[in-house]
Amino acid sequence: MSVIKQPSRRAFLRGSAAVAAGAAGPVAAADSARRPDPLITELQDWTSYTGAGVDETPYGLPIPFESDVIRRNVEWLTASPIASVNFTPLHALDGTITPQGCAFERHHSGAIMLRKEDYRLMINGLVDRPLVFTYEDIERFPRENHVYFCECAANTGMEWAGAQLNGVQFTHGMIHNMEYTGVPLRLLLREAGARTDDNLWLYAEGADASSNGRSIPMAKAVDDCLVAFKANGEALRMEHGYPVRLVVPGWEGNMWVKWLRRIEIVDTAVESREETSKYTDVYEDGIARKWTWVMDAKSVITSPSPQRPVRHGPGPMVISGLAWSGHGRIARVDVSGDGGITWQTARLGKQGDTKALTRFYLDTVWDGAPMLLQARAIDETGYVQPAKDRLREKRGKNAVYHNNCIQTWYLNSDGLAENVEVS
Amino acid sequence: MSVIKQPSRRAFLRGSAAVAAGAAGPVAAADSARRPDPLITELQDWTSYTGAGVDETPYGLPIPFESDVIRRNVEWLTASPIASVNFTPLHALDGTITPQGCAFERHHSGAIMLRKEDYRLMINGLVDRPLVFTYEDIERFPRENHVYFCECAANTGMEWAGAQLNGVQFTHGMIHNMEYTGVPLRLLLREAGARTDDNLWLYAEGADASSNGRSIPMAKAVDDCLVAFKANGEALRMEHGYPVRLVVPGWEGNMWVKWLRRIEIVDTAVESREETSKYTDVYEDGIARKWTWVMDAKSVITSPSPQRPVRHGPGPMVISGLAWSGHGRIARVDVSGDGGITWQTARLGKQGDTKALTRFYLDTVWDGAPMLLQARAIDETGYVQPAKDRLREKRGKNAVYHNNCIQTWYLNSDGLAENVEVS
Repeated sequence: MSVIKQPSRRAFLRGSAAVAAGAAGPVAAADSARRPDPLITELQDWTSYTGAGVDETPYGLPIPFESDVIRRNVEWLTASPIASVNFTPLHALDGTITPQGCAFERHHSGAIMLRKEDYRLMINGLVDRPLVFTYEDIERFPRENHVYFCECAANTGMEWAGAQLNGVQFTHGMIHNMEYTGVPLRLLLREAGARTDDNLWLYAEGADASSNGRSIPMAKAVDDCLVAFKANGEALRMEHGYPVRLVVPGWEGNMWVKWLRRIEIVDTAVESREETSKYTDVYEDGIARKWTWVMDAKSVITSPSPQRPVRHGPGPMVISGLAWSGHGRIARVDVSGDGGITWQTARLGKQGDTKALTRFYLDTVWDGAPMLLQARAIDETGYVQPAKDRLREKRGKNAVYHNNCIQTWYLNSDGLAENVEVS
Repeated sequence: MSVIKQPSRRAFLRGSAAVAAGAAGPVAAADSARRPDPLITELQDWTSYTGAGVDETPYGLPIPFESDVIRRNVEWLTASPIASVNFTPLHALDGTITPQGCAFERHHSGAIMLRKEDYRLMINGLVDRPLVFTYEDIERFPRENHVYFCECAANTGMEWAGAQLNGVQFTHGMIHNMEYTGVPLRLLLREAGARTDDNLWLYAEGADASSNGRSIPMAKAVDDCLVAFKANGEALRMEHGYPVRLVVPGWEGNMWVKWLRRIEIVDTAVESREETSKYTDVYEDGIARKWTWVMDAKSVITSPSPQRPVRHGPGPMVISGLAWSGHGRIARVDVSGDGGITWQTARLGKQGDTKALTRFYLDTVWDGAPMLLQARAIDETGYVQPAKDRLREKRGKNAVYHNNCIQTWYLNSDGLAENVEVS
C-alpha cells in the first residue's frame, strides 16, 4: 500500500501530461490573434463554425457529452419504481451544490403533480386556531436561505452486510445538497397559535397517496425546520415535493415530507408506519433502535472511485470527496491510502455550512502502487466517523439504516477502483 | 407614497389570507391518518393516484407548471441570436444560486460543442516553457470552490437613456451566480514558468469563432481567477463554456472567456476588438472610458416587480431582491417605498460571499397605497449604489456599460408594478 505524498512543484513538472508547446519560446506582445502560431492553428477546429443562438435553449440541459451523468436506479432493489429510490451521480460531481436535475429521488407512491393554486397546508391539533394556508399565504411570511444536505436514512445501508455495490453513486448517492428558501416552521406554528412545549410533537404528512407521515419532536420543529418552496434558487422540482416540502436540517431524509399537506400538533408520537415498520432497525436480540433521526458525521471519496478510475497513470493526483454531519459543521477530514494505518488531513474546498455537504481535496502524487483509499470525517462536536467493523460491533450486520462507516476503495495499479472491506 | 411599515404578529393575523380551519379545535394524539377530519378530506385529491417512478427522469426538468420560468431574449436588441444575449428570470427566483438551466447566455458567435477529449489550453508568451494542457491535465492541479456572480457589463444598460424595459428579467437579468470548481489560474501560470510581474498582462481567448479575446492585468490573474470546469456541482453547460471557462471574480462577464483556448503572457494590453469597439464607453466629448472591469455595487428588487405583481392585496408583504459588488461583500441593503426619501435596512437572507449575489428581504405590511420601490446596496468598502441621475451627471446618457444605478418600480394600488424614473 502506498503512503500518500504531497506534491512539489517539480513533481508537477515531471508528472503532468501537459505537453510543452515546442520551441515557440516567449513571444512578444500585441494582438497575437493576428499572428497565429503553428501550434495554435491545431487548436482552432471549432472556429470554423458558429454555434447555437440564445433563442435555442429557453431552459437548458447538460451537453449531450455528459449524458451519463444522471440519476440511476437499481431495479432489483425494490418491487416498483413508484416506491423506490434513485441515486445522485456523486462520482461525476464536484464542489458542494447538487443540481436538482440529478439529485436523488425517494418516493413511497410516486412523484405527484400538484399545482400551486391547488396547494393547501393545514396546521391543526393543539393550536388556538387551526389554519389552512395557500401557497401565496406562505410567501407572505419572512423567509430564509440555507444550504442543507438531505440524506436518506438507508444511504450506504447495503454496507452493513458487506461491500456490495460497486460505485459511490450507489453506496452513497442517496444524498443531495441544495440552497433552500423557505419560511421557518416556527412562524407558521405561531400564526396558528400552536402550543410549542418541549414534550409535544408534530405529525407531518404529505399530499401523495402514501402520505408518508412522520412524528417530529417540537424542539426540532421550532429550532431550524423550514417550510421550503425553492431549491437552488428556483421552484422545487416535482420529484422533490413541488410546490412545498419540509426541510428538517441534519435529520434523515424521510422526515423531509414532500408535498407537505398537514401538520398536526400532538402530545405523543404517532408511531406511524414510516417510523415503526420502516426507518427503525430491529436487531438480532429483538430490540428495535428507533428515533434515530440525526445523520451522524460521514464522508466518502468520490474520486478516485469505482465509477471514476484514474486514467492518467502515476504523478499528481487529486483525491476528492464529500463530508457532512447532522450535528453541525465538518471540522476536519482525514484521508488514508493504506486502509487506515496512516492518515493525512485533507484541504476543505471552502469552510462548510452547518448541516451541509463539505467538499475536501488531498493534492497528492501517486506512485502507481495499489492503495486502500479511505476518508474519515470529524465534526464540530469532536465525533469521529467510525470504521465499519466498529459500527457492526455496536449494531450488528442486519441493520438497514444509518450506516456512516468509513468506506474503502481498493485502487489497483491500473487506476481501477473497487468497493472492498478491510479489517 | 407609502412609508414601509414593519409587521407585527397581529398584522399577520389580520392581513394573511390563511383560512381558519373551522371549529376542529385541538385533536388528541395517535395516528391521525386513520381519523380524517372533514377539512382534511378536502385536501386529499392527490392521494387518489400514484405518481411518477424513479426511473422516469434520469435528468430532471422543472415541472410543466413552471414553464414560464425561462431565459428570454429580446429579438430587436441584436441582429442575430448567435451574437446576442438572453436574460435570467430573476423575478421568479429566490435565494442566491442561479440554476445553470436558466442562467443568462451571451455569445459572440454562438455556443459551440467542444468535447473534453478535444479540449486544449495553451499558455504561451512570456513563459519559461509554453505548455498545452488537456482537460485531464487541468483536473490534476489543486482546485477550489467559490460562489461568484457573473454580470455582463451591459446589464441595465438600457437605463442610461430611460426606463425602457418593463421587467427585472430584462433590466437586470444579464447576471447569474454559481458555485464554481476550478484550478487557480496562478497554478497553471506557475507550471508554465510564466513571468508574473505586475506590469504584465494576459491575453485570454476562447475556442469559438469570435475568440472573444480580452486583456487581463497580471495582478488580477494571480489573485483570484479560476480556470473552472464545474458550476453548481456539475459540468459547465455548453452555453456557459463547456468544458472550461475563465472565472474573473467581480469583473465584467465578457472577460470570463468561455471555451478557454489560450492564455498568452504579454507586456502590454492587446487592445482587441472586445476591449476597444466594445466594452468601452465613448462619451459625448469623444473621450473613451475604458478598462472599466470591476462591477460596482448594485442591487435590485425582484419582487414586487413588473413581472411579479402583488396579487394578495394589502397586509403582510415580503419585499425581496438581490445585491452584489465586484469589490467584495455586501455590507447592507436599504429599501425605500417613497422613491428614496426614507429608507429602511433590509434583512440579508444569509451573509453573502465575496463577489457573490446576496439575497435581501424586507418583511413589511402594505397598506395598499402606491409605492415607489427602490433598493440601494452598500458594499464592504463603504461604496453606496448611486441614484440614476447622479450616475448620469458623471457619465452622460449615451453610455452602454456599467449602469449600477438605483432602480425604481412604481407599484400601484392594484399591485401592478412598472419601470419608472424619479428625480
